[in-house]
Amino acid sequence: MSRVLILSKHADEYRRLVEAAGLPGLEELAAAASPAEALALGDDFDIVFGEPSLIREVLPRLRDLRWVQATWAGVEPLLDPSLRRDYLLTNARGVFGGLMSEFVFGYLLQHERRMIERYRAQQEQRWDASVTGTLRGKTFGLLGVGSIGSNLAGTARHFGMSVRGYTRASESCPDVDSYYHGSSLLDFADGLDYLVSVLPDTKETRYIVDASLLGRLPAHAVFVNVGRSSAVDESALVTALRTGKLAAAVLDVYEQEPLPPGHAFWKAPNLLMTFHTSAPSFPGDLACLFIENYRQYADGRAPLHAVDFEKGY
Amino acid sequence: MSRVLILSKHADEYRRLVEAAGLPGLEELAAAASPAEALALGDDFDIVFGEPSLIREVLPRLRDLRWVQATWAGVEPLLDPSLRRDYLLTNARGVFGGLMSEFVFGYLLQHERRMIERYRAQQEQRWDASVTGTLRGKTFGLLGVGSIGSNLAGTARHFGMSVRGYTRASESCPDVDSYYHGSSLLDFADGLDYLVSVLPDTKETRYIVDASLLGRLPAHAVFVNVGRSSAVDESALVTALRTGKLAAAVLDVYEQEPLPPGHAFWKAPNLLMTFHTSAPSFPGDLACLFIENYRQYADGRAPLHAVDFEKGY
Repeated sequence: MSRVLILSKHADEYRRLVEAAGLPGLEELAAAASPAEALALGDDFDIVFGEPSLIREVLPRLRDLRWVQATWAGVEPLLDPSLRRDYLLTNARGVFGGLMSEFVFGYLLQHERRMIERYRAQQEQRWDASVTGTLRGKTFGLLGVGSIGSNLAGTARHFGMSVRGYTRASESCPDVDSYYHGSSLLDFADGLDYLVSVLPDTKETRYIVDASLLGRLPAHAVFVNVGRSSAVDESALVTALRTGKLAAAVLDVYEQEPLPPGHAFWKAPNLLMTFHTSAPSFPGDLACLFIENYRQYADGRAPLHAVDFEKGY
Repeated sequence: MSRVLILSKHADEYRRLVEAAGLPGLEELAAAASPAEALALGDDFDIVFGEPSLIREVLPRLRDLRWVQATWAGVEPLLDPSLRRDYLLTNARGVFGGLMSEFVFGYLLQHERRMIERYRAQQEQRWDASVTGTLRGKTFGLLGVGSIGSNLAGTARHFGMSVRGYTRASESCPDVDSYYHGSSLLDFADGLDYLVSVLPDTKETRYIVDASLLGRLPAHAVFVNVGRSSAVDESALVTALRTGKLAAAVLDVYEQEPLPPGHAFWKAPNLLMTFHTSAPSFPGDLACLFIENYRQYADGRAPLHAVDFEKGY
């Protein structure tokens, strides 16, 4: 029998959805919206489902902990080497790929079709029939080809783009035309029309998007970051935009969030910002993921999407 | 042996591309950018490749005419009943579908991800992490499912939408989940999240998007017109937007183009305008289409994409 703690700002909705699934072997299903609330409910939960930033706070107190299912793809708050690692950590995979695809290709199409320029023309009642571009035939470069990257590669393929992937070692996505690893990073960047990072935060990915990588892109290239902010040298990026060495960028993540007023990004030329919103978390998706994984666990099989504490993803 | 006239604003580029193809049986390949220039080149061409609006002007003079390949999908200028119809007219098909998909889904994603609102937030240095929407699970309704519509249906399916198609009779696209015809138009509209028209200009399609059709859409629905303007009752559309009966619209085509200053569309609430630019004509695509069709013709087979003068497409 299992005692499950849901620890999330969506705790009530998750509890409703998980309850409705009628899971077997559930002795207790508790829901808390904060660490304090969670600790008041007890310390004998063997399963926790929720946000890594909240779970981190209760982690040392859970004496029977066996499994944590995170509602995020990136689980950095739980990777701190000072924290315990005597439990199975699984992250949210297969949930965000489609949403990220919508975000990334929405912004790529915005760039090709100059939607914001067209919007400005309309404000000025100006008929602007200048010819716009197309994704077809362009080259899409992916930094990181896991679950999310594979989904992006499929959408790039759908729009007739060729796809390059830069990974640590894996070459498993059929929609990637050519793979690059390790020291071939600059070859990977050479001639890309679009560079998109979905990289997690690890030692190897830190500042991988730096002046030398940006300098290898064509001047018409566009950079999109929907992975972790640590992959980007923010000042090199601003310089590349200001000097016209990069045509445009779209950022969803920042070293400091919310980004403080006055930061150079707000007004950097041809930079479009979003606010850590590229893949909205829909509770239904994540509850489904937990329910499926719980059934695995209850059947004595290993839950899917285990995180390697050393690799960081 | 064939005598080919290219009559287009891109005449020189088309001639270069067609020449490079080394077509068989080509006695003459002439290029003109205007009807006057064309007529100065002679009147004994049996094949004409170019823009319908220009070809219309020389049509009566071409005594040996056998085949016209249009560079447009819509060929209205050549459908006027007062014009001759003693030749084969083929239009541009299979060329614009991908480009239209980019346009339509770019704007659908703009709507879901509120790109213009996010852009405004950035201008104001305001961190706006409000949750945005997704295409997945939404219902996409297509008015017209020909070559372009089929491509749109495939992209809707790619993004996890369900697809309804309204057509005269055909039910041949595998990416359409359910078909509607004739008097079932209002059933088709019922519950759509997105209504997209790719209809040609025919007697049956005139003002098909009227107050009653718009009234049947949910208030959160979005209408996109990338077909012909004649399908839309423009004043009913403005009223639906002003009264909040329609959440948004995207228009690329208008009864009068360029749209005159002061027209209600420029400032209609939640209307985004583009300027007959949804499917840019790339000369390479259209030259390819002509070259392939010419090879058919030279081999004694019928060129593809014949237009039915009565149906109008």
